[in-house]
Amino acid sequence: MITLLTDFGTKDAYVAEMKGVILSINPSVQIIDITHDIQKFNILQGAHALASAAQYFPKDTIHVAVVDPGVGTKRRPIIVQTKHCYLIGPDNGLLYYVAEKFGVIKSVEITNKKYMLNAVSSTFHGRDIFSPAAAWLAKGISLKEFGPEISDIVKLEIPMPQITNNKIIGEVLHTDEFGNITTNIPSEVLNKLEIKFGDKINLKFGKNTLSIPFLRTYGEIAVGKMLALIGSENLLEIAINQGNAAQFLSMQIGTRIEIIKGV
Amino acid sequence: MITLLTDFGTKDAYVAEMKGVILSINPSVQIIDITHDIQKFNILQGAHALASAAQYFPKDTIHVAVVDPGVGTKRRPIIVQTKHCYLIGPDNGLLYYVAEKFGVIKSVEITNKKYMLNAVSSTFHGRDIFSPAAAWLAKGISLKEFGPEISDIVKLEIPMPQITNNKIIGEVLHTDEFGNITTNIPSEVLNKLEIKFGDKINLKFGKNTLSIPFLRTYGEIAVGKMLALIGSENLLEIAINQGNAAQFLSMQIGTRIEIIKGV
Amino acid sequence: MITLLTDFGTKDAYVAEMKGVILSINPSVQIIDITHDIQKFNILQGAHALASAAQYFPKDTIHVAVVDPGVGTKRRPIIVQTKHCYLIGPDNGLLYYVAEKFGVIKSVEITNKKYMLNAVSSTFHGRDIFSPAAAWLAKGISLKEFGPEISDIVKLEIPMPQITNNKIIGEVLHTDEFGNITTNIPSEVLNKLEIKFGDKINLKFGKNTLSIPFLRTYGEIAVGKMLALIGSENLLEIAINQGNAAQFLSMQIGTRIEIIKGV
Repeated sequence: MITLLTDFGTKDAYVAEMKGVILSINPSVQIIDITHDIQKFNILQGAHALASAAQYFPKDTIHVAVVDPGVGTKRRPIIVQTKHCYLIGPDNGLLYYVAEKFGVIKSVEITNKKYMLNAVSSTFHGRDIFSPAAAWLAKGISLKEFGPEISDIVKLEIPMPQITNNKIIGEVLHTDEFGNITTNIPSEVLNKLEIKFGDKINLKFGKNTLSIPFLRTYGEIAVGKMLALIGSENLLEIAINQGNAAQFLSMQIGTRIEIIKGV
Repeated sequence: MITLLTDFGTKDAYVAEMKGVILSINPSVQIIDITHDIQKFNILQGAHALASAAQYFPKDTIHVAVVDPGVGTKRRPIIVQTKHCYLIGPDNGLLYYVAEKFGVIKSVEITNKKYMLNAVSSTFHGRDIFSPAAAWLAKGISLKEFGPEISDIVKLEIPMPQITNNKIIGEVLHTDEFGNITTNIPSEVLNKLEIKFGDKINLKFGKNTLSIPFLRTYGEIAVGKMLALIGSENLLEIAINQGNAAQFLSMQIGTRIEIIKGV
Repeated sequence: MITLLTDFGTKDAYVAEMKGVILSINPSVQIIDITHDIQKFNILQGAHALASAAQYFPKDTIHVAVVDPGVGTKRRPIIVQTKHCYLIGPDNGLLYYVAEKFGVIKSVEITNKKYMLNAVSSTFHGRDIFSPAAAWLAKGISLKEFGPEISDIVKLEIPMPQITNNKIIGEVLHTDEFGNITTNIPSEVLNKLEIKFGDKINLKFGKNTLSIPFLRTYGEIAVGKMLALIGSENLLEIAINQGNAAQFLSMQIGTRIEIIKGV
């Protein structure tokens, strides 16, 4: 099984060209789209989406990820074998979250032209290098055939929450299409403030402080009202029931927030 | 075969997480997207799209539909077996149109944790309950294993056209991406006005009355001109050849219309 | 294997209906989306996207393409067998580029009702004629069963670049979601100007002349700077590194350009 994640969008034929290449080499493989609507060149957002999705796919799934502003430059095309899955893409940090999440077994640089398209363009390695590599890997070609082992894949800074004096300092990791705001604060960290369902929390950001209830799910508060909850990624989430919290609060990836227990 | 219909959009990894869950349980199943661009929380629109698509899928296809503003509250997760297909989703009316269309054989509430993900979130039953249920159902688990039979699934009001004194009173059921306006008036009802191809009909809505020709298809009138026709769902449709009728007439789901035979 | 390319968008159930029809006839076929976001009624754009993608798919792939403003009128539904693949769609020029690209073996008009849905609408031949034809063709039904051979499929003018006095006159063929501008000038034509990587080219359009460097790939110039390059379709491309050149230069399909070697 091969998945695809890119910032190519779906209006052009680029994603289809990748699928055609894969299926020409390996017609029996199943291809699943993760998303092609990563914000263009936003490696951080791509890394986060990939890490969210990968854990739900079967063991040994091959994930091809292409958010690649440096395509055709010296950045390396790589394959990373983790304890749960394989990752293929540019070595620009995009694969780092998910590689760290599962633990790396082995990484190689793709250098063997035998497993690339005959003519490799300078601008579309998704089609010319990453897709063929995925198709051949799914066919059973072993990692060492693709190129030399490497041990220094490019890192991406993973923002970690800090807890001091009953205050958690975190940041916005992600806002979704509903406008729900996912922070980088896992439920285990929030638990240290001893907040129970129904309690209030104080959310500080910029010059604002809001007091909002901590609940189980959106529908536990009236439509249009704000709440805090543990979302489906086990992270603290700020949301408005059937509304768009990210828009309402003007929050985006990286917005710094503080959480303290309310009264 | 499993289909997916949601209001999740395609920018986030949510749909991919559902697919990963399904394929982890049942790697041989084929997954087809109906659409993920239902207007957020619009159960009526989701119910209509599902009912339109389901009839074209093979018998016993499993349709997973998730437009679920009440996720994590007391609304029930259900499976409905109809004479044509299986339906899985929240019991909030979303499945009602298509259940009525084909006729219900049996419905159950999903309560058996054995067929859910180990950790069920309060906010993403699409991934944690509905997807695993679909994958297990496709594997041959029988309906009664999922939970107790129920007989009172939530209804959705289906707007029916009325005919009086050679006047049909109907409403807009749907507007599509082309801007074509699908009404709730089937060709059999329209036939009672004895309108032939080439005749004019008078369309009343709000304070407006338009006289427009009743034709077979868009290309029978000049580009930019309005027409009435029987669309691909066998319902009366108002359209502009290569134009956007919904935008031009400011019509939306629920807009009330009257049709009389023109002179 | 069957691919689909349409201007239907993905909000409605239309594409899913096509897939349901195909899988009802032929459950074992694999369906791949090329794109459903062709600009509505833009046959030229659809023809270009199809021609770009088709070469990367396995031999004998069946491509169904529907950009069909004349649906239900006298324009013919056709199947074209080329040396590389099969094409199914309306005879309005949409299939012409790709047919010319690979060379036509045989074309037929689809007239045999046996291989259509029982009820053929006047407005959705994608579902009622083209999808069933693709499913039956993939099942092994031979071309002559579908209808009479034809030899006069509708042509689409393919804009060719002209070279005179060291000046190339071309036009914009395509702009993609990144805003990269693909011209109709292949690398072989550009080569006649003897431009080497690092050289400047002068790009004239309207009353403007820009001097821009000819490079291998986007990342060879600072973010926000413009460059010319040979894109992944082997055509001259104008781009801004991590920017949107089409928007910045207000260029669109058909914009006339001139290229001369810079100093």
